[in-house]
Amino acid sequence: MSRLCVHTITTKPLSLEQCLTAFPKHGVAGITIWRQALENRDLRTVQRQTAEAGLEVVSLCRGGFFPATSASDRQKAIDDNLLAIEQAHALGAPLIVLVCGAVPGQALTESRKQITEGIAALLPAAEAAGVNLAIEPLHPMYADDRSAVNTLRQAHEICDALGSPKAVGIAVDVYHVWWDPDLQSQIDRAGATGRLHAFHLCDWKTPTTDLLNDRGLMGEGCINLREISDWVDGTGFTGFREVEIFSNKWWSGDQEEFLDKISRSYDLLYS
Amino acid sequence: MSRLCVHTITTKPLSLEQCLTAFPKHGVAGITIWRQALENRDLRTVQRQTAEAGLEVVSLCRGGFFPATSASDRQKAIDDNLLAIEQAHALGAPLIVLVCGAVPGQALTESRKQITEGIAALLPAAEAAGVNLAIEPLHPMYADDRSAVNTLRQAHEICDALGSPKAVGIAVDVYHVWWDPDLQSQIDRAGATGRLHAFHLCDWKTPTTDLLNDRGLMGEGCINLREISDWVDGTGFTGFREVEIFSNKWWSGDQEEFLDKISRSYDLLYS
Repeated sequence: MSRLCVHTITTKPLSLEQCLTAFPKHGVAGITIWRQALENRDLRTVQRQTAEAGLEVVSLCRGGFFPATSASDRQKAIDDNLLAIEQAHALGAPLIVLVCGAVPGQALTESRKQITEGIAALLPAAEAAGVNLAIEPLHPMYADDRSAVNTLRQAHEICDALGSPKAVGIAVDVYHVWWDPDLQSQIDRAGATGRLHAFHLCDWKTPTTDLLNDRGLMGEGCINLREISDWVDGTGFTGFREVEIFSNKWWSGDQEEFLDKISRSYDLLYS
Repeated sequence: MSRLCVHTITTKPLSLEQCLTAFPKHGVAGITIWRQALENRDLRTVQRQTAEAGLEVVSLCRGGFFPATSASDRQKAIDDNLLAIEQAHALGAPLIVLVCGAVPGQALTESRKQITEGIAALLPAAEAAGVNLAIEPLHPMYADDRSAVNTLRQAHEICDALGSPKAVGIAVDVYHVWWDPDLQSQIDRAGATGRLHAFHLCDWKTPTTDLLNDRGLMGEGCINLREISDWVDGTGFTGFREVEIFSNKWWSGDQEEFLDKISRSYDLLYS
């Protein structure tokens, strides 16, 4: 259980303070904080409260959304990401997860170019703050407006184009990449290049009734979770396994019971 | 307009007879018949009616669904595909489109092996009947239960594994493959190997509210339709451009108006 992390979005109905109370009761050791959860809060206070709860801040979610049709909108995105770096630094979060963005109708190649330029613009601030940036490839069903980076290979290509800075890595989320025939080899490559910065867990349900908010609890779906997790660990990865579940179904129920189920399914997966 | 084909599923509320009357009025030259539309019908009569309507039968949709956990279920799938070959032959349809299938929780590699074996089992009958089989890669969001073949590259790999028989090719549907970074090169490869058997049109809407039945009319979405179509034609492809739109929205409206919009959007796309 020492590697179990939960994202605040997973228990969306809970306030950040409620998460800090509830997570440790269920054996959760790490927390990834979504930026929405930080509204109207003093970040140093959050950092202190998190430490007092015995939770390690694993990452801040999420930066990105770099592509835009105008240069001024792209600059706005960069400015917002610079703010996220400040927030991560204040929270003591070592990592920001990047949902890279896309513009419907703009060529995906152009969007990836703008993503690469956006990350390059952040790099000095990220390095100065000691905050890493993780490119999270998103499932191809999000290629229209959420991310033009849809495979690990593409994430690697952006890291390569940036000159492989240490501060830029990759987040592997099973939901987005489980179908990829190159998954194992690209995970190995992430390990070999020191780019494997984060590992996210959930499951793919059959049927999936909503493109955004019908993810499954581990075991509810068809993903070969243990196998993928073993590939990740096989690279030498010893970081947190982060549970990130967007689910109207689970959000509508009791969140303490949900956390109990998360804890049990995690335990079952790794027993 | 001489290359415009419409799938009967696109105007699902219409009976096959209604399609045969309505399609030509809107300049449609080809028809792809879904097997559901053939229920309780004499196939030779359908063939005659279609010819009388001035419509060319482009393909029969759909065969496939080869993977299963038991050998007897896999044999049932093969038997059903053999029936589809007989149907296609009776209709004068030169092609069957294969939605290859997947079993939730079964390794995708195993499903692809079963798909390859299934197609191999059909090959003698398909060749004897003069009916081609087109592997249609499906979007990765269907990898759980509809198809373990999610990219053109994987379709090529299956063709290669079968020894590249002339009767087995690939159907390119923009909805499934538009996001693929290797799209152009894999279309080129399909042209160079004589495997480009079918080209399907629709669009990807933002937001997409249903995984199955929220496809867009051409122009409603973000896909670079003309560019992809030019890549297809650039290989020397002169076959039909088949409009296949699953849409609760469009199915709920007047189908004659819908056919008019299809005809106009097709015209606009290629003007």
